[in-house]
Amino acid sequence: MKVSVVKNVLDANDRIAMENRALFDKNKIYVINLMSSPGAGKTTLVERTIEALKDKYAIAVIEGDIQDTCDADRVAKLGIPVVQINTGGACHIDGNMVREALPAFNLEKLDLLLVENVGNLVCPAEFKIGENTKAMILSTPEGADKPAKYPRMFQESTVMIINKADLLPYVDFDMERARRDARATNRGINIFEVSCKTSSGLSDWFRWLEDQIESFKKLNP
Amino acid sequence: MKVSVVKNVLDANDRIAMENRALFDKNKIYVINLMSSPGAGKTTLVERTIEALKDKYAIAVIEGDIQDTCDADRVAKLGIPVVQINTGGACHIDGNMVREALPAFNLEKLDLLLVENVGNLVCPAEFKIGENTKAMILSTPEGADKPAKYPRMFQESTVMIINKADLLPYVDFDMERARRDARATNRGINIFEVSCKTSSGLSDWFRWLEDQIESFKKLNP
Repeated sequence: MKVSVVKNVLDANDRIAMENRALFDKNKIYVINLMSSPGAGKTTLVERTIEALKDKYAIAVIEGDIQDTCDADRVAKLGIPVVQINTGGACHIDGNMVREALPAFNLEKLDLLLVENVGNLVCPAEFKIGENTKAMILSTPEGADKPAKYPRMFQESTVMIINKADLLPYVDFDMERARRDARATNRGINIFEVSCKTSSGLSDWFRWLEDQIESFKKLNP
Repeated sequence: MKVSVVKNVLDANDRIAMENRALFDKNKIYVINLMSSPGAGKTTLVERTIEALKDKYAIAVIEGDIQDTCDADRVAKLGIPVVQINTGGACHIDGNMVREALPAFNLEKLDLLLVENVGNLVCPAEFKIGENTKAMILSTPEGADKPAKYPRMFQESTVMIINKADLLPYVDFDMERARRDARATNRGINIFEVSCKTSSGLSDWFRWLEDQIESFKKLNP
């Protein structure tokens, strides 16, 4: 008897991600997959982004966590539809987990879907979910050596948001090195220096994101 | 024809970890598996620990990184034998990787082996390497919600080192919550509050570690 083998789990995931993407395109939803180490500030960036853009766009959020709903609870307080994915131990979210979450939303009404991945600078970069953009956050206390040490995350991301700029006086963070090493691995990466705590630098990120959404809408009229 | 199946990769890893452990015991080497999110301060803790204990114990280090040797280069400057494991993309080190690294050391001469894992708060907790102790670092900028959100790491660890205490005035870190949630998942966890930058609190960690090594030596005379 012939045994069929799934040669590549990532291939299977890519197929589901493409199906998700087709569904998003059909419904004109721009999707961001937001990734970082634990505690770099993903949820706070989601909160700030919602506050800035919710009057202009219909936003929804998927929160990926190993367990618990504390990030989703924070987002729900802003009056935004949010679905919690609990991975039950898994270190990333994948295309199928996102697909399972989608029936909870009224997709026809959405403009922007923010997907917050599990905190992990390695594995999430390997799994597409059907996003338009992978955005990653590097926080200054983590150190400027991270692009050199965890290159795939920086290669895969369109955006690097350097967060916790308010801590720069108190940590050893070589901004030039972080920028140089990120660009060495991904020449076109868009870099924003921000503090989600003080809101410094965030207006550039909001403007960039608005431009992306507007360009996307023109391509999917 | 019968197809044999490896049911559980973790079972196979546990077996190799046990073999490593037997080899360590035979050579009277106390082994620490050091884990944390990227940038929490593992390498700096390794440096401080070497500086404090190298006159008393023969120390060696295994550095686990996805690529590059920058942490190993830092340790080598202290005159300590160090082997770099490059995982080539993998998000943790396992028993077999450690086994492959051991022939580079003169095991009979060692007292203490520090194994620095890949920066990741999820996957490394699942893979034994033959260690006596799993120690994890939580840095204050990551936030006090991490024990609740990444419980397995805190369940598996004997030690939680809360690092970057020097940043407490500048970050929102609820020390009571971090301690309470870590103890809720692992009642006996040993907690140290330190700053590897200023060296505050480190003497308690060094004393605890010395006690562990001395107790271990008595059990393996």
